[in-house]
Amino acid sequence: MRLSRYFLPTLKETPAEAQIASHRLMLRAGMIRQGAAGIYSWLPLGLKVLKKIEQIVREEQDRAGAQEVLMPTIQSSDLWVESGRYDDYGKEMLRIEDRHGRQMLYGPTNEELITDIFRKEIKSYRDLPKNLYHIQWKFRDEIRPRFGVMRGREFLMKDAYSFDLTEEDGRKSYNSMFVAYLRTFARLGLKAIPMRADTGPIGGDLSHEFIVIADTGESEVFFDKAFDALDPMIDAGAGDDLQPIVDEWTSIYAATDEIHKPDNCPVDASKLVTGRGIEVGHIFFFGEKYSAPMGASVQGPDGETTNVQMGSYGVGVSRLVGAIIEACHDADGIVWPESVAPFKVGLMNLRAKDDECTAACDKMYAELTKAGVDVLYDDRDQSAGAKFANMDLIGLPWQLAIGPRGLKNGVVELKNRGSGERVELSPEDAVTKLTG
Amino acid sequence: MRLSRYFLPTLKETPAEAQIASHRLMLRAGMIRQGAAGIYSWLPLGLKVLKKIEQIVREEQDRAGAQEVLMPTIQSSDLWVESGRYDDYGKEMLRIEDRHGRQMLYGPTNEELITDIFRKEIKSYRDLPKNLYHIQWKFRDEIRPRFGVMRGREFLMKDAYSFDLTEEDGRKSYNSMFVAYLRTFARLGLKAIPMRADTGPIGGDLSHEFIVIADTGESEVFFDKAFDALDPMIDAGAGDDLQPIVDEWTSIYAATDEIHKPDNCPVDASKLVTGRGIEVGHIFFFGEKYSAPMGASVQGPDGETTNVQMGSYGVGVSRLVGAIIEACHDADGIVWPESVAPFKVGLMNLRAKDDECTAACDKMYAELTKAGVDVLYDDRDQSAGAKFANMDLIGLPWQLAIGPRGLKNGVVELKNRGSGERVELSPEDAVTKLTG
Repeated sequence: MRLSRYFLPTLKETPAEAQIASHRLMLRAGMIRQGAAGIYSWLPLGLKVLKKIEQIVREEQDRAGAQEVLMPTIQSSDLWVESGRYDDYGKEMLRIEDRHGRQMLYGPTNEELITDIFRKEIKSYRDLPKNLYHIQWKFRDEIRPRFGVMRGREFLMKDAYSFDLTEEDGRKSYNSMFVAYLRTFARLGLKAIPMRADTGPIGGDLSHEFIVIADTGESEVFFDKAFDALDPMIDAGAGDDLQPIVDEWTSIYAATDEIHKPDNCPVDASKLVTGRGIEVGHIFFFGEKYSAPMGASVQGPDGETTNVQMGSYGVGVSRLVGAIIEACHDADGIVWPESVAPFKVGLMNLRAKDDECTAACDKMYAELTKAGVDVLYDDRDQSAGAKFANMDLIGLPWQLAIGPRGLKNGVVELKNRGSGERVELSPEDAVTKLTG
Repeated sequence: MRLSRYFLPTLKETPAEAQIASHRLMLRAGMIRQGAAGIYSWLPLGLKVLKKIEQIVREEQDRAGAQEVLMPTIQSSDLWVESGRYDDYGKEMLRIEDRHGRQMLYGPTNEELITDIFRKEIKSYRDLPKNLYHIQWKFRDEIRPRFGVMRGREFLMKDAYSFDLTEEDGRKSYNSMFVAYLRTFARLGLKAIPMRADTGPIGGDLSHEFIVIADTGESEVFFDKAFDALDPMIDAGAGDDLQPIVDEWTSIYAATDEIHKPDNCPVDASKLVTGRGIEVGHIFFFGEKYSAPMGASVQGPDGETTNVQMGSYGVGVSRLVGAIIEACHDADGIVWPESVAPFKVGLMNLRAKDDECTAACDKMYAELTKAGVDVLYDDRDQSAGAKFANMDLIGLPWQLAIGPRGLKNGVVELKNRGSGERVELSPEDAVTKLTG
C-alpha cells in the first residue's frame, strides 16, 4: 500500500481526552476515531490489526473443535425474562423498543440466545459435545466509557458456549477452552496468566480470567515466577486429557490486587512477581444455570432426559488491540508483535524527488509485494525525520529506508522496530531477509 | 468436517412460515434460524457461505482501490439532524435512547458518519480520491419483515463512499464501482444486470440498481438479450478509462416492471427477454448532498475551498445468500456455485457399519483434506437414501459416494450436483479430479 493513497490520519499531538497509552497511540496512529462516547470507527490501519487478532482467535477456537456461528446483535427480551436475567442486568443493557412496541435489546452477551438455538435443535446425547462460538459486536452501556477500546460501549467479543451431557464432560470442554486461550494469547505475542475469578452476572462456580501482563495495565497483579517455565503453546490432540495441563497452570499462585493478601501469600517474596495486568479473556463453567430455567435438555443413553451442562468463554477481541499496545509500546510509539502487525514492513523513500531513489524504492516495493510481503510504502514527499518518526509511531516490525547516499554505496538500511537494531545491506539481501 | 460432529440441523419438512424458495431452503438446510421477526442467527453452514460472499465482495472492492474501514452499528442522532435526514427516515430507523437519555440509532446506512470522519481528517485535494467501504450489520425496522434474509431487519451490507474534488472525478469513482459490481456478481456465479434507478432517500441524480436474474425473483424485469454478449469480468487497470465500458452496459435496454412500458419499449419483441429479478446492489452519485450541509470540503489546487463530490455504493451481503439460492436451486435443494459453496465435496459413507468401507472413506477424507479440499464427510450411520437426499438439499458442488459394492470393483461414485452427471472411477482418480 502506498502511503500517499492510504487513509492514515496520524497525529503529531497527543489528544487531550486520551488518558492511557493505548488510547493515545491508537488515536495518534490513525487506527480509530470516536463516533460517540465509547463507540469507535476503525480506520484502515486499526481494522487490519483487529482482523488479524480475530483470525488468530478463530483459528484456535476451530483447532479446539468449536464451531463458528453468528448470532445477531439485536435480541428479543423474552429469552432474558425466561432466564431471569432481564431485570438483573440493569442499565448496562441497551434496551430498545421496535416500531411495534416490542421490547428488544442489544446483546451484551449471548447465553440466552445460544441456549434457545440449542434447545430447539439438539435432543440427543449423541449430538454432544457441542461448542458453538461467534465473533460479534456487543453493547454494554457503561456509565463512564473511557480508555478508548479498552472500556468502550460497542465492542467486539468472541464468545463460545459449550454443551455437554455430564459435569465431567463439561469440565473437559472447559479445559479445552482453557488451553485454547493459552495458545491464543501466546500467538498474539502476549504473556497471559490465568487467574481464578469471581463469576459475577454470568454465574457458576468455576471461572478463570486471563490477564495479560503489561507495565501500564489497569490493575496490579501478583504471581509466582514459576509461570515463566511453562510453555503456553500446548500441542494436544483431540482426545488428549488436558486436566494435568490445566492443573499445572492453575496450581501456581496468581492473583489480582482484589484477592491478593500480602500477609497471607503462599509464595515466598523472592519468587513473587508484582506487575500490572489487563483482563482479556474470561471463562466460566456454570452447569445448569441456563439449561434448567430454559429447558435445554437431551435424552441420555439411559433414555432419561437431562439438562445439559454449559460453560461460556469470552475473549475481548477489540479490547485486545488496546491490551497488545499497552504491553508492546515505547516512548516513540507502538511495537507490534509480528503476528498482528498491520504491515510487516514500512518502506521509506528518503528522497521522493530523486528519480533514481524513487525507482529503487518502486522496485523494492514491487519485489516485496510480489513475494507476498505486506508493505506500507511511504512514497510521500516529506522529510526523512518525519518519515522515521511516523514509522516508529505506527510500529511496523521492520523499517526499510532507502536514500540516495546509501544507494551510492549499494546499500539500504533495515531497522528492527523491537530491538532498534539497524543494519546496512544490499537491496537483494534485504529482500532475502524480509521474505525468508 | 465430520457430519457426526457438525452442527447442521437439516429439516425434512418445509417450515410453514417460509413463502419463498431461499427462505425454505435456508431453514431446511440448517443455515439460519430466526431469533425475532426479521432477525436471524447464522448456523455454521450458512455462515460459511456468508463469509465466502463477503470475501469476494471485499476482494473486488480492494481491487478497485477502495479501502476497508469499520464503522460502528450504533450512531449518535446528531449527524442525522445535521444532514437533514433524521426526520425523513421515519419508522424504519431504529431509534434508541441510552442510559444518559442521549438519542442514538442503529445505522440503516452510513453517509452521515463517513462524511463526519472525512471532514475531520481530510483537508486537501492531494488526499483525493478516496473510497472508503465497510461490511457491517445494519438495521431497518421493516414493518413486515419476511422472506428470510431477503427482507430481514438486521442485515449485512457492504457500503462504500467515494470522495472526489470534481464531478468528473466523482463519475470516475462511480464507474470504478460499477465495474467492480459487475465482476463481484459474476464471481458469485450470478447473472446481474445494471438498471437505471430512482435514488430514493439516498438522493442524487445518477443511480443504478444491479438486478440478479432468478426464476423465482421478487419482481418482473425486461431486458435486451444483447446483455448475453457482454463479459462482466472486466480486466481494467488502475488508470484506465472505464466510461466506454459503462456506456456499453448502460446503453442496452433493461427495466423493472415499475418502469417498463410494453407499448413504448425500444427493443424489438424478438430480442426482449422477460424474466424475474432480485436487487442485490445499488450505487449512487449524489455530489454535494451530504458534503454541503455537513461541511465536508477540501482545498483545491487553486487554494479555493470546495465541497467534495460524493457517491455511495451498496451490496446486500446477507441478501445475496438468498439471491444466490433463488438463482441456483432445483426441486431437490440448493445448487451452490463453486465460488460460494460451503464445502466443495460431500463425502458419503454408504455403509458406516462396514469397517472396510469406513476405512476407505476415512482414507479418502484424510487425502482430500490434506490436499486442501474442504470436505463435509457424512460418517453417520444412516441409510444411503437419506444421505443422498441430504447432500442434494445442502447443494455442495460434488458428491462422492463410497459403498461396499463399488469398493469390490475398485470404484467410487462422483456426482456433479449441477449437471446431475455421475461417474464411477477409482479412488485415486477421484482425488485427482477433485484436487485438479
